[in-house]
Amino acid sequence: MREVAVIGIGQTTVDEHWDKSLRELAGEAVLAALANSGLSSADGLFVGNMMSGSANHQQHLGTYIADWVGLRHAEALHIEAACSSGAAAFRSALMAVASGSLDVAIAVGVEKMTDSPSSEVTAELATASDADWEASQGVSFVALNALIMRRYMYENKWEREHFAPFSINAHANGSHNPNARFQEPISENAYKRSPIVADPINLLDASPMGDGAAAALLVPASMLQKVNGGRIILVAASAAATDTISIQNRRDPLWLAAAERSSRQAYAQAGIGPEDIDLFEAHDAFTIMAALSLEASGFAPRGQGPRLALDGEIRPTGRIPIATRGGLKARGHPVGATGMYQLVEAVQQLRGEGGGSQVEGAVYAMTQNIGGSGSNIITHILHAS
Amino acid sequence: MREVAVIGIGQTTVDEHWDKSLRELAGEAVLAALANSGLSSADGLFVGNMMSGSANHQQHLGTYIADWVGLRHAEALHIEAACSSGAAAFRSALMAVASGSLDVAIAVGVEKMTDSPSSEVTAELATASDADWEASQGVSFVALNALIMRRYMYENKWEREHFAPFSINAHANGSHNPNARFQEPISENAYKRSPIVADPINLLDASPMGDGAAAALLVPASMLQKVNGGRIILVAASAAATDTISIQNRRDPLWLAAAERSSRQAYAQAGIGPEDIDLFEAHDAFTIMAALSLEASGFAPRGQGPRLALDGEIRPTGRIPIATRGGLKARGHPVGATGMYQLVEAVQQLRGEGGGSQVEGAVYAMTQNIGGSGSNIITHILHAS
Repeated sequence: MREVAVIGIGQTTVDEHWDKSLRELAGEAVLAALANSGLSSADGLFVGNMMSGSANHQQHLGTYIADWVGLRHAEALHIEAACSSGAAAFRSALMAVASGSLDVAIAVGVEKMTDSPSSEVTAELATASDADWEASQGVSFVALNALIMRRYMYENKWEREHFAPFSINAHANGSHNPNARFQEPISENAYKRSPIVADPINLLDASPMGDGAAAALLVPASMLQKVNGGRIILVAASAAATDTISIQNRRDPLWLAAAERSSRQAYAQAGIGPEDIDLFEAHDAFTIMAALSLEASGFAPRGQGPRLALDGEIRPTGRIPIATRGGLKARGHPVGATGMYQLVEAVQQLRGEGGGSQVEGAVYAMTQNIGGSGSNIITHILHAS
Repeated sequence: MREVAVIGIGQTTVDEHWDKSLRELAGEAVLAALANSGLSSADGLFVGNMMSGSANHQQHLGTYIADWVGLRHAEALHIEAACSSGAAAFRSALMAVASGSLDVAIAVGVEKMTDSPSSEVTAELATASDADWEASQGVSFVALNALIMRRYMYENKWEREHFAPFSINAHANGSHNPNARFQEPISENAYKRSPIVADPINLLDASPMGDGAAAALLVPASMLQKVNGGRIILVAASAAATDTISIQNRRDPLWLAAAERSSRQAYAQAGIGPEDIDLFEAHDAFTIMAALSLEASGFAPRGQGPRLALDGEIRPTGRIPIATRGGLKARGHPVGATGMYQLVEAVQQLRGEGGGSQVEGAVYAMTQNIGGSGSNIITHILHAS
């Protein structure tokens, strides 16, 4: 397997982009990644997207976007793994380059959600759960997460306000990110006053939908001297694992077995442990998911994710900074694009381009993208060398 | 890159499977491929599917199907490239094994189309074209192919009945395939009397939709002594290329540039030429596509695809047999599954399991899966050694 490096990144703001089509958003990110890399073309394009078939009446996004950005005749595919579609596209691009099939591959995640009424978006998001045994019962994704959070609070003796630091940290970091959907810090009082969406989840526990695209360009590390100077960002690890699609079928609904499995594989590939990770872009679609992700990935003991947050250890100056550019909570969660935003932001941190929420001296950055209610989890480790 | 072999295949019949869900269909094919391989599990599952998000209200098919067949915690992704989703899933599985990321990968293509009214299916198929510039103008896929066929007939002086042998050959071969949607031979008279769907395309030029699933299991060739005796089926080549998504943007709408590009790459990888191919599973969604595919892949001069058919050279005993198990026309075209049916049937031929339409002594089999109106084309060459 060839060693692979990321040499270009690009992103749009996460927003209500009513003036831009799906292809314009994806194109903006892809062309920015190309420009950032110094290259003018690529052999392959891997597009992560969840819902354009129903929301935008457009499938076949590989060809659709390759054509739009002028990658004429390049290989192009669309990869879908619900909310982990972004990281899945990155992993597919990575395998194409690592295997020697392609020399220059671009991964882009894109989602355009705000053209549809929110009731439709809720139904489309529910296609990530089990259509027969979850969605058709009327259980939305926020409801599934609320079930998990309620049980977690009961088992571990946490109160709602103990989850506030996840949201406060994300918004504080998002305030330094010009691409974030929300760029204002929030107070603990704002969190406490926030209206309940699905008890115990309130509005500030939940990430916002949005429109956006983020892209990265991958090449074999051996090509690097030719095209890039300075720091080299290597893909040190990539691992994916699944769990049951329905929470009801899990032996332990409070443990992200797929996160444990994919992070363990990733640590083994990189030859490091959780103590070596300088920042962790966790999948904080809901605050409970940030807590579970920290625990299953080896950063906190079981049931103690909120303790890390309460102790300030998830801030940019803490032991394991998360949501360093706002996370899903403040940067926003355009579902099929989110995993690519995480990876692009990890590259920014490793390059020292983290702005007001730069993690000083970061060398290893980990990202973890979650599809469904913990049922498809993809972990990457990037290394600045 | 590691050499990869196919050691297990499985398929369902192509039919109106109203009594089986999407996961039951896919599961049947995956479990058959596992049983056929002699293995009991796999590290990864790559699912090709086009329209389940809208037609079945179910996305996240990687996890959904891995969970169903008991591949607990395996990596699992859904790949979409319109009607070439099947071959795209195979190629993704191949890259995962070739790169060394996985040791045992299963690719499955599945589509369940007949639960939806045909007007909805037509709209869903149109999401493979350009939503803004083709589909929203009311141009269906059969209409796009009719435009191409009409121009092709004019340029090359062919009449409608010259396309009959494509359909007759497919149905003759399908009559020997117990998994085919149509298992009755047709006569030239039946073709001539067939009602027009979109002039000049008649009902017997067009492939039928259907429900079905087909799967293959891939391992590194170096593992083979451990798990399989007898003939070894190697993946000798895999290549993908795209073209503009809209026909209107093509310099030459009568030439499948993406087929030319991907077949040339495939020949180079396998170290052979078209003259070495013993059978060619072409993407005969419409008879015109079979002709164009034969030409762009080097089997017939430009404009002369129908000549090959008229001369009987596409039959199992001819120079370049196509649709050897019925093709899209008679085996059926469950869109996201089709590419996997082609590959499974190619393996059958190379194993000598081709039944009444066995191509004697076949050593090299080529498959070509087309997404959109020639806009995403994936070519594989399998080799029996």
